[in-house]
Amino acid sequence: MTTSHDHILKHFDVELRELKDKLLLMAGVVESHLASAMQALGDRSVAIAEEVEKSDPEVNVIEMEVDEQCIRLLALRQPAAYDLRFIAASLKIVTDLERMGDLAVNIAERAEALARSPQLLPQLDLGPIAAATQAMLKDSLDAFVRGDADKAESVLLRDNVIDDLFLEAFRTLIESMKRDSSTVDRAVGLMFIAKHLERIADHSTNVAEAVIYHVRGKDVRHKFSLQRP
Amino acid sequence: MTTSHDHILKHFDVELRELKDKLLLMAGVVESHLASAMQALGDRSVAIAEEVEKSDPEVNVIEMEVDEQCIRLLALRQPAAYDLRFIAASLKIVTDLERMGDLAVNIAERAEALARSPQLLPQLDLGPIAAATQAMLKDSLDAFVRGDADKAESVLLRDNVIDDLFLEAFRTLIESMKRDSSTVDRAVGLMFIAKHLERIADHSTNVAEAVIYHVRGKDVRHKFSLQRP
Repeated sequence: MTTSHDHILKHFDVELRELKDKLLLMAGVVESHLASAMQALGDRSVAIAEEVEKSDPEVNVIEMEVDEQCIRLLALRQPAAYDLRFIAASLKIVTDLERMGDLAVNIAERAEALARSPQLLPQLDLGPIAAATQAMLKDSLDAFVRGDADKAESVLLRDNVIDDLFLEAFRTLIESMKRDSSTVDRAVGLMFIAKHLERIADHSTNVAEAVIYHVRGKDVRHKFSLQRP
Repeated sequence: MTTSHDHILKHFDVELRELKDKLLLMAGVVESHLASAMQALGDRSVAIAEEVEKSDPEVNVIEMEVDEQCIRLLALRQPAAYDLRFIAASLKIVTDLERMGDLAVNIAERAEALARSPQLLPQLDLGPIAAATQAMLKDSLDAFVRGDADKAESVLLRDNVIDDLFLEAFRTLIESMKRDSSTVDRAVGLMFIAKHLERIADHSTNVAEAVIYHVRGKDVRHKFSLQRP
């Protein structure tokens, strides 16, 4: 025999799972836009870049749906403890995901401009920064789905790697601009792409922090040294 | 005669006011750090820049306190409608304020590096971008305190002005780097400061959007064209 209370609880679980699924869907969309933006850069493809630039509304719509869902759950279900922290974390994570989506679009815009101008030789390889950033994004979301605080912690520790890669790219581009002023426009374009990747990594650490908070009820923000160059 | 229910309600109002006061305090701290960072740039003062760089923990502590307060209010008070939206908006706004604080520190770091290197002539005047950004930050927080959705809307409309000013500064700096490669380091420093200011303006529009949502219960995000260069 199920009581009406059991029924309410079960329905709440379903709604929480829907919320989680929607965040995962959004993360998948952002991941794929980021991958496409980097492909547009590598392949010098205006078409792929434009595809990403058109994709922004999709992410924005999901963001608004997630916010609404969170507010509705808070209003109707009055959750406590773990569930409450999960919903508060979701309100934070959705903001980070939306900004990551914006940054993927910004990268695509820069990639498009670079594809339309002559190639900068030697082409700076942003592959390692992009790969590390994508791994951080993916792992922070995996940690969120599984409620895996250890995995989330491993994401936090990797932020310094990105910062080092960024500084290295930065120095290379500065040198290139000093040596040959005809590379200035394109070097600045690549510099901003590197900066956008670094910011996506920062947002992944925000997601990881929110996961640790939601799983352990402990605030780990500002305890790791997250130096930004 | 006051009933126990009245008492609870009054206490809730007091807690909401405390939450608002804490966000205002945080906004005041961020505003003052931004003003100091820009002063460090203008006066070429390493000392003022270092002062701002040391200030980060203060903002971070307030952020964690605000988050805790929001969670506690949601858990214990189970607010509805306007109050619920206010608390959800606070969870968003506090994140934006914290990032703005980080950006003020980033500006101070760049200002310090610039103060330590020979002066770039002609010095680019970032005053108009800084003034416009500071006004947007101030007005978005004023709108929040007063629950003034009209004022918040006026903030959204000003984001394009910042974008135009940023693009103009950007072009000036690119020209300078092309003309004289000895200006590259310093031009890149100023470029990032301009970019940080533009991002602070973006965060102010996020705050303004959260205010409109909290006052009108209507989501205005992604309805204004917030183009980012």
